[in-house]
Amino acid sequence: MILQYDGTRYQGWQKQTRTDNTIQGKLETLLMRLAEEEGIPQEIQVNGAGRTDAGVHAKGQVASFHMETGLTVAKLWKKINQYLPEDIAVISMAEAPERFHARLNAQGKLYRYRIDNSEIPNVFERRYVYAMPQQLDLAAMQEAAQYFVGKHDFLAFCSKHSGKKSTERTIEAVRVESKDSEIDITFTGDGFLYHMVRIMTGTLIEVGLHKREPASIPETIENRMREQAGFLAPASGLVLEEVYYA
Amino acid sequence: MILQYDGTRYQGWQKQTRTDNTIQGKLETLLMRLAEEEGIPQEIQVNGAGRTDAGVHAKGQVASFHMETGLTVAKLWKKINQYLPEDIAVISMAEAPERFHARLNAQGKLYRYRIDNSEIPNVFERRYVYAMPQQLDLAAMQEAAQYFVGKHDFLAFCSKHSGKKSTERTIEAVRVESKDSEIDITFTGDGFLYHMVRIMTGTLIEVGLHKREPASIPETIENRMREQAGFLAPASGLVLEEVYYA
Repeated sequence: MILQYDGTRYQGWQKQTRTDNTIQGKLETLLMRLAEEEGIPQEIQVNGAGRTDAGVHAKGQVASFHMETGLTVAKLWKKINQYLPEDIAVISMAEAPERFHARLNAQGKLYRYRIDNSEIPNVFERRYVYAMPQQLDLAAMQEAAQYFVGKHDFLAFCSKHSGKKSTERTIEAVRVESKDSEIDITFTGDGFLYHMVRIMTGTLIEVGLHKREPASIPETIENRMREQAGFLAPASGLVLEEVYYA
Repeated sequence: MILQYDGTRYQGWQKQTRTDNTIQGKLETLLMRLAEEEGIPQEIQVNGAGRTDAGVHAKGQVASFHMETGLTVAKLWKKINQYLPEDIAVISMAEAPERFHARLNAQGKLYRYRIDNSEIPNVFERRYVYAMPQQLDLAAMQEAAQYFVGKHDFLAFCSKHSGKKSTERTIEAVRVESKDSEIDITFTGDGFLYHMVRIMTGTLIEVGLHKREPASIPETIENRMREQAGFLAPASGLVLEEVYYA
């Protein structure tokens, strides 16, 4: 299924034991309730392509699950949307091959970070942007963004890494674009580490504020030290736009 | 001043005795507090061009007030935005002639009503639209809309009218436009009665659903009976876009 959600009031995608206020938790609880109503009680695990953080939004999250049901996909889809809270919606749903896994089969993702760069932030967009009235040097940000492209070890751009798994990722494109008083940064890549998009964004914002040089980025990647990278940009501005499959 | 607000959590523009959860109330309280801080305590009344209902939004509300202050307009403007809640913003502010009154001097207003006509409502727009997945006959709505244009007695399109004041208004234009899966209805006129835009919208939606004929509108206007007009469309879809002055 393809999901859209306003992440504002959730603790992120991933189910947690201490709270069920997560997107994954809401979906699993709902699907298991529907299965029970049908008389086919079962454990259901919903796998999301991207484990979006608390407060991060999605326009095209992809999630997969196995469910034994007598319902058609269309009927199940309708029922899910009927019971989901109004800030989560399943925008499409289809049967997938038995072994399809939304996260493991994902080949790439597109994230967008939205900066409201107007002097007086737009009240209607406030939940979906980072409001930053200071002037940003767009050309410097565009120059800096190019240093992220390619296959690199992104350890410096990642929070709380255990150090066991690889921190190498391939970034295909980073685009910094302005439209009216909004600045959008889109990141396409094969995968992103914990907080990676938000730390890259914070670093690009520091470049835009002339607090650091574009050329500091390759050095920061090289040194693999979190403290050399920029600040963690707020969750509100981030949206998982699309997930790519073969 | 020109104001933008997300009306979702307010009881509307107009100050009420039993609650201060109104836009006017918030502004007056804030301005009087600023005056007091300056050592010039005074009563301040803020006059808004349109008395938007509970839940109705504004992108271009205009409001005027008199204030004795040693602050420059720029400084006062900055202070106001600093203290206003994040769902209200003053987007511009200027000194006006002594006798300027935002409501009495207004010559026209533009309201927009937004209908999210997609099968699965957009979660990010849910506070600012009326989500209506049923199919609407756009051509019929456009035809019907033209009957509102002109100078008419709009008593049938008004809630709880005392009957003392004139219910005659002149509508300059009503446009029904679709863009992607959204249908926008814009109303321009010299003034609008209580609930008038929302009742005209509800009536146009009934036409779009083939629950009534476009030609029923002139008859409804003629008969001046509220029960012949359509339902009251929800507040969430309505925005005061602009106020016109000479």
